[in-house]
Amino acid sequence: MIFRQLFDSVSGTYSYLLASRAGGEALILDPVLEKVDRYCKLLQELDLRLVKAVDTHLHADHVTGLAELRDRTQCITIMGEQSKADVVSMRVSDGDRVMIEGLCLDAMYTPGHTDDSYSYLMGDRVFTGDTLLIRGTGRTDFQNGSARAQYDSIFNRLLKLPDETMVFPAHDYKGDTVSTIGEEKRYNPRLQVKSIDAYVELMNNLNLPNPKLMDVVLPANMHVGLHQDELAKEGLALSARDAIASLGRPDILLVDLREVAERAKHGTLAGALHAPYPGICATLQPGGMLREVAAATGRRVVFFCAFGERSAMAVAAAKKAGLANTAHIEGGIDAWKKAGGPVVMG
Amino acid sequence: MIFRQLFDSVSGTYSYLLASRAGGEALILDPVLEKVDRYCKLLQELDLRLVKAVDTHLHADHVTGLAELRDRTQCITIMGEQSKADVVSMRVSDGDRVMIEGLCLDAMYTPGHTDDSYSYLMGDRVFTGDTLLIRGTGRTDFQNGSARAQYDSIFNRLLKLPDETMVFPAHDYKGDTVSTIGEEKRYNPRLQVKSIDAYVELMNNLNLPNPKLMDVVLPANMHVGLHQDELAKEGLALSARDAIASLGRPDILLVDLREVAERAKHGTLAGALHAPYPGICATLQPGGMLREVAAATGRRVVFFCAFGERSAMAVAAAKKAGLANTAHIEGGIDAWKKAGGPVVMG
Repeated sequence: MIFRQLFDSVSGTYSYLLASRAGGEALILDPVLEKVDRYCKLLQELDLRLVKAVDTHLHADHVTGLAELRDRTQCITIMGEQSKADVVSMRVSDGDRVMIEGLCLDAMYTPGHTDDSYSYLMGDRVFTGDTLLIRGTGRTDFQNGSARAQYDSIFNRLLKLPDETMVFPAHDYKGDTVSTIGEEKRYNPRLQVKSIDAYVELMNNLNLPNPKLMDVVLPANMHVGLHQDELAKEGLALSARDAIASLGRPDILLVDLREVAERAKHGTLAGALHAPYPGICATLQPGGMLREVAAATGRRVVFFCAFGERSAMAVAAAKKAGLANTAHIEGGIDAWKKAGGPVVMG
Repeated sequence: MIFRQLFDSVSGTYSYLLASRAGGEALILDPVLEKVDRYCKLLQELDLRLVKAVDTHLHADHVTGLAELRDRTQCITIMGEQSKADVVSMRVSDGDRVMIEGLCLDAMYTPGHTDDSYSYLMGDRVFTGDTLLIRGTGRTDFQNGSARAQYDSIFNRLLKLPDETMVFPAHDYKGDTVSTIGEEKRYNPRLQVKSIDAYVELMNNLNLPNPKLMDVVLPANMHVGLHQDELAKEGLALSARDAIASLGRPDILLVDLREVAERAKHGTLAGALHAPYPGICATLQPGGMLREVAAATGRRVVFFCAFGERSAMAVAAAKKAGLANTAHIEGGIDAWKKAGGPVVMG
């Protein structure tokens, strides 16, 4: 496995680059905008293809690298379903699995620092975001933070992991790089409380100043979505309403870009083919399956996904591959459902 | 294995705390004085006993934690035989092994950044000090540095390690924590040279300013030896000359505190018992082997080691255990040899 802990000294942020092998797929956790050049160089040097970029929560102290990485690498961006970020490619909820080739991260909803805070468990390592820090915990005094929720997330979720589980947080300010659940249980000063009320009391009296760049950073991190307006102007986007109206039309070929688990959980559209996003470039090349189907049937390919990001990137990829007339459903199946469109399960 | 990479953000130094198990012996590489409190707390929390503290070379940018750690934990301090540090407990040369319970580090003499620079290989990890950095190399323009020697150390020693060997340097200033030999071979910009002369040319034209605290740090790091004067004043020290004169006296019991490999390499004193330093406290307690031998024979225990540090600490440990009349040979077998004392091999 390739496991790289990368430090941004300005914000004290740890980002994590994960892959199962050189030459394979990679995932990055909590990337920092200013370090994107470094990540991209490292990805290239290690011969990795970034397919997923995940933020554990909406950060208030640094601008996320999610959007920039997506724009440069066409990777999928991921946050929790509770996140106030405008658009990400995929939203997870508790118990979901974030998979790349050879690796699997279990999403654990651990609110408290914010109401969109997740931790990710990968074997004997847990990425705790700002929920559990080394000998500390993330503040709970803004962004719908809740000391009560955090107590529950830490004591009833994270500390129930095996003692030897390695803890990799999103921040450290004192030079530590890793800890374990057992250590934090015993030596984290904030966790030596007798009750949830004592923890709430402790956290509500920290009286910390706001992060320096919070007023700039939060709005930036809430607007990470891919700009999809251009596609609409070019006539390559269908609104959910238009898409619903054209359901069943014989000249349209619906293509679902989501993963198997997303389809199982949220349903799909009747008659849609399934072509998972990570392989879309190959299938669009001359000789590729989707390209052949489109040519043989003469139908217009209409991509859709969860929120319209992957489908917008697929339209761009199709154009690049010489297939100019594909389109996508704006806002994805999420917008489709909100507009009253029917889905089929299983 | 317990493996902790610890960062000092002021000097950009990485220190490494290593142990084979909780409850066992630990070793620390390149500790920073200002972080000693943190190391000691972590040692206690992880239930580790620090037995060795190693500096890869004489640092010019931060004060070493070696002396402070020795004074607090009675651990052995280790540097290369070329080091200008006044006294350390043990000096290694190329090919020596630094062992603690369950772990073994192979010392590789890799001069260039300084003339006392060592790297340490532990299985699939190599600690490269300031010789090989991540996408960089240590400067070679002071402390008898030599770009020519460094080229040889890097190209003919370090880069000959397997490509997948993980590289853990003593510094990083850009947020990287680890690399591999294969990566550095291909992507370290300083190593993309056609010849040793090209490397020398490159390194000799960096024109770097001196480290900020160099004038304070270097003298401090050269005076790390244990203060042994007090013992002499108390009559608990024999000069090498006095010790040689008393060789063979029936009222003296010589005790060699060094490791098996040191004895094999440098010889020992005729008639000396062997009691390795790490176990000395136990053997000095009532019921302990050395205590019993001293009592049974009525002889005065005279400790010796390589340079007099371990023996001075053993005298202090004996006093603490209620054995007030032990002594040690000042300057160890090194001083003994320099004064013309005879040694026996094997």
